[in-house]
Amino acid sequence: MNNCLPHNNQPLDTETLPSVLARIHEEVVTEYGKGKVADYIPALQQVDPKQFGMALRTVDGEEFYVGQAETNFSIQSVSKLFALMLALEIVGDDVWRRVGREPSGMRFNSLLLLESEGGIPRNPFINAGAIVISDIIATHSSIPSKRIEDFIASLSGNKNNRVDSKVAAGEKATGFLNTAIANLLKAMGNLHGDVDHTLECYFKQCAITMNCIDLVRATECLANRGNSTFQTGEHKPVADKRINSLMLMCGLYDAVGNFAYNVGLPAKSGVSGGIVAVAPGQYTVSVWSPELDHYGNSVLGQLALEKLTIYTKTSIF
Amino acid sequence: MNNCLPHNNQPLDTETLPSVLARIHEEVVTEYGKGKVADYIPALQQVDPKQFGMALRTVDGEEFYVGQAETNFSIQSVSKLFALMLALEIVGDDVWRRVGREPSGMRFNSLLLLESEGGIPRNPFINAGAIVISDIIATHSSIPSKRIEDFIASLSGNKNNRVDSKVAAGEKATGFLNTAIANLLKAMGNLHGDVDHTLECYFKQCAITMNCIDLVRATECLANRGNSTFQTGEHKPVADKRINSLMLMCGLYDAVGNFAYNVGLPAKSGVSGGIVAVAPGQYTVSVWSPELDHYGNSVLGQLALEKLTIYTKTSIF
Amino acid sequence: MNNCLPHNNQPLDTETLPSVLARIHEEVVTEYGKGKVADYIPALQQVDPKQFGMALRTVDGEEFYVGQAETNFSIQSVSKLFALMLALEIVGDDVWRRVGREPSGMRFNSLLLLESEGGIPRNPFINAGAIVISDIIATHSSIPSKRIEDFIASLSGNKNNRVDSKVAAGEKATGFLNTAIANLLKAMGNLHGDVDHTLECYFKQCAITMNCIDLVRATECLANRGNSTFQTGEHKPVADKRINSLMLMCGLYDAVGNFAYNVGLPAKSGVSGGIVAVAPGQYTVSVWSPELDHYGNSVLGQLALEKLTIYTKTSIF
Amino acid sequence: MNNCLPHNNQPLDTETLPSVLARIHEEVVTEYGKGKVADYIPALQQVDPKQFGMALRTVDGEEFYVGQAETNFSIQSVSKLFALMLALEIVGDDVWRRVGREPSGMRFNSLLLLESEGGIPRNPFINAGAIVISDIIATHSSIPSKRIEDFIASLSGNKNNRVDSKVAAGEKATGFLNTAIANLLKAMGNLHGDVDHTLECYFKQCAITMNCIDLVRATECLANRGNSTFQTGEHKPVADKRINSLMLMCGLYDAVGNFAYNVGLPAKSGVSGGIVAVAPGQYTVSVWSPELDHYGNSVLGQLALEKLTIYTKTSIF
Repeated sequence: MNNCLPHNNQPLDTETLPSVLARIHEEVVTEYGKGKVADYIPALQQVDPKQFGMALRTVDGEEFYVGQAETNFSIQSVSKLFALMLALEIVGDDVWRRVGREPSGMRFNSLLLLESEGGIPRNPFINAGAIVISDIIATHSSIPSKRIEDFIASLSGNKNNRVDSKVAAGEKATGFLNTAIANLLKAMGNLHGDVDHTLECYFKQCAITMNCIDLVRATECLANRGNSTFQTGEHKPVADKRINSLMLMCGLYDAVGNFAYNVGLPAKSGVSGGIVAVAPGQYTVSVWSPELDHYGNSVLGQLALEKLTIYTKTSIF
Repeated sequence: MNNCLPHNNQPLDTETLPSVLARIHEEVVTEYGKGKVADYIPALQQVDPKQFGMALRTVDGEEFYVGQAETNFSIQSVSKLFALMLALEIVGDDVWRRVGREPSGMRFNSLLLLESEGGIPRNPFINAGAIVISDIIATHSSIPSKRIEDFIASLSGNKNNRVDSKVAAGEKATGFLNTAIANLLKAMGNLHGDVDHTLECYFKQCAITMNCIDLVRATECLANRGNSTFQTGEHKPVADKRINSLMLMCGLYDAVGNFAYNVGLPAKSGVSGGIVAVAPGQYTVSVWSPELDHYGNSVLGQLALEKLTIYTKTSIF
Repeated sequence: MNNCLPHNNQPLDTETLPSVLARIHEEVVTEYGKGKVADYIPALQQVDPKQFGMALRTVDGEEFYVGQAETNFSIQSVSKLFALMLALEIVGDDVWRRVGREPSGMRFNSLLLLESEGGIPRNPFINAGAIVISDIIATHSSIPSKRIEDFIASLSGNKNNRVDSKVAAGEKATGFLNTAIANLLKAMGNLHGDVDHTLECYFKQCAITMNCIDLVRATECLANRGNSTFQTGEHKPVADKRINSLMLMCGLYDAVGNFAYNVGLPAKSGVSGGIVAVAPGQYTVSVWSPELDHYGNSVLGQLALEKLTIYTKTSIF
Repeated sequence: MNNCLPHNNQPLDTETLPSVLARIHEEVVTEYGKGKVADYIPALQQVDPKQFGMALRTVDGEEFYVGQAETNFSIQSVSKLFALMLALEIVGDDVWRRVGREPSGMRFNSLLLLESEGGIPRNPFINAGAIVISDIIATHSSIPSKRIEDFIASLSGNKNNRVDSKVAAGEKATGFLNTAIANLLKAMGNLHGDVDHTLECYFKQCAITMNCIDLVRATECLANRGNSTFQTGEHKPVADKRINSLMLMCGLYDAVGNFAYNVGLPAKSGVSGGIVAVAPGQYTVSVWSPELDHYGNSVLGQLALEKLTIYTKTSIF
């Protein structure tokens, strides 16, 4: 007898997926009340906490979803994934001259490492790194926030994935910590444009509205060898294996280790309760549920993804 | 036209593996002289730097190797992987009460986080965490170092995988930093046995001798759903997906991000120049070349693994 | 025979003071070229580095000076001393609810401790603490910078001790680090007013113009039991022993230990090269010389003060 | 009307001292129960907490005392003052090549700064610095602990100021943190002798037994221009103003700022509840009361010293 868990990387059985998602839905909703909705801006605070949506899209284009998968929400830090893809498209590997690719080991909004490491943020998914990415986009675009909107809409195929200006205004009004970070970056020479201009781009990007289905479509290229069904026009997603590795190493703030351990998929989360994850070569999946744990990640969302990789045996490990 | 790199997770073509390994061997040896052999103990310092060995074992039991794959070396921190497996076997998930599962973001021997985080090391692969693991093994074994030797030998099928007592003595004589870490753990209540007894176990474990072929056999269970061809007797490897996730997140000191980005396989390195890596469901691979970069990882070893996942398209991302 | 240095705290022999100051002047000017003028704003950078002024005023009202003691300069961080006195006058010991009284052990502009210590700056003389002091003044004044100007002028008896608007504009244009600190304080709840309004007060206060003679008059109350010859009108200096202790512990950035060791007087320095020091019960003294050491303190200024306490045996230790 | 506190540095009125000390004694004993006796070694833990002793010795040789001033106690970190004096006697200013003279801004036993600052402890009064001082003494003495005993006895004139071997054994048995620090110093090249040998010297020095009267005699030289009534034989105290400045900046762990602010005398404390302080040119004073605040300083002791400098107007500020 062998007491090891069976390995994963099994072919996805799409026939059972509807029942798997239904089962996950049924199981996770018993966990309502174990987290807290983000309270730092009114627009997020007012969201009904007892919501859960989940969508999955295979590389063959089949889509499955349960719950409030069609309800729009503010994607918050999930936008950092799209901003990185756009910045890589604009300046290529020069991105890596200004941000690192290592997990930070610190809170997502910490200024500590920034100060001690010469103004080079550890990775593009902590706030400091994401602000550098915003600076890259802003200094290369005539209307930066529109460029990000258009980029995301081209990936998701949904032209309604736009900035919620009320949310963006809320971000700005309470964004003292991000303003501190941007000014510290400027003082250390790693913010090339105007501080306020960069921050406006950053705050707007966080306020873009999507739903679970939009998210699995917009990230399709990350699972499917760069192919993107919905992408139109001139944009070519820079969607190689390296973005997936960054998501796994840095995508869930300082809870990456536990997420890799429990779920085993590259993913990016946001404080609105959304998480998008990638099973390379197989599928993309997104979840949304506003209640957060103390790391700022969706309680039901993480649990749903853990159940998914267990039930379908699709952890990458 | 699409400028994305193609995705990976392709079936391994074993027929081409001999030529792939030969090509890698030929390519990497041009890089001799770009790193430095570890100099902190005489036994490591005296090793001829211009050596390179590589072995690969598929989950079907086929083995391939090039260079000095049969040359024995001191496995150093690669031993932390086996020690973790043994500790999980002994106390199960109680391991996680005493060490975390997050990347540290710091040098492998840093005391900083230990002090600020209440004596709980970030993960079992930094020195502080590995010393806690040694403490678990030492307090549950009559002859701790023999238990580790026997455990490794049972996995590799090679009874000669033993402690090199000369190397162990060298570790001890120069081990002031590890002694500092062990005493700090004791002061913070996270070292239950005797400090010297624990350190003896730790120093000996680092001094175990293996070669590249031993390593791919001993880690087989991590790629192959827990199955281990060579394992004999009572030991059952605790070889689930979670150990692979820990290796990916924490296995290469503070260079994990770049390694995940460039190679894309869970791996564990040591300052003797060895690295063992796992392609879940496909194969295990090991490399050994003594010249290190400034993070303490083998220069040729990392390069060889990067080439392997590119040539065979087997990055997990 | 006893190899100890003789103790200090000797009565000041004012008859020899002219020759003592002349000797110091003669000796220190041989040290020109050993430091560097502050370069972060143009107005400071353009100052002729080879200047030295020194003034001393006894508690009996006698004044002595040498060199460019009548040349005006931007007082920079010396202003933090006056701002603290004014804030104590306005809100009394409530000041200490918002800033500490301990040396920081860090660079004057570090954000590290601020983040880890809940937004309470270590003391009112590091930038973070001084910005909190500015916030106290700004939220209690109709025209904050005018209030500080008037306060200083009332202490020095010189109505020309005013803000140099060109210098203030330069501070603002390059003040990203201070802007970062102010926003971080706001994010942590320790900045009650508007961030920009507070910073304007802070930048202007640093740009006030004084000379060495103004400085020894304005600080008279700190040496003379609170008495201030030049003070007029309603302001009452809060000039007790506690301000002197703060100057000694925190007045020279992270070089306080060496300054206490070598000079032995409470003092406050600024990056324009000014230092004002207090010998309690005896005299106040000021020096100005623009070349700075790498801590940001005047090279000739520190040397002159060290010579003064040796020649006159007036170290407090 | 002027709301400033009157200045200090007044001549000491010795006629009123008996009544001043009696008043202080009467006032402070009402504060019993506000602190906690050190509990890390049994010998300290067993001390009756409700004890208070105080002694004062003027530079003219007059002595005054109240309470348990003749009760012996383990001097603990107060010994760091004597060890520094001895090390300065042995190697002179070479001491400062291996320890700094700046306040640490951290807990007395922190390893943080040590790691980040290349193994040079901030000052000789934090544990790391004191262990370097022990190393200097140990590598220059045939029987280090006897040398320290003899040095202290020569200063106090009391040959019974000896190591309490039971306390020393307790220090060693529980001294994991200090062992960690010593090993870290060794790893960083700033401990030249044998680690265990150095630690034995350090643990014994902390276990020397004195009473309040011994302490004011042994420190006489620090107040009295290097003169020492009780010193006999070959030892010459290195007792200049610079040691007093170090005590003020670094003598009370990370509470130096508040102590300077409230008391205004150079001082050194220990976790047994003893504090010795110096009024340069005037007197030395010692207090002992075992209950500690959370910084590790005597609650009643600090209060008694604050009252003393207020009642006698002898703060140095």
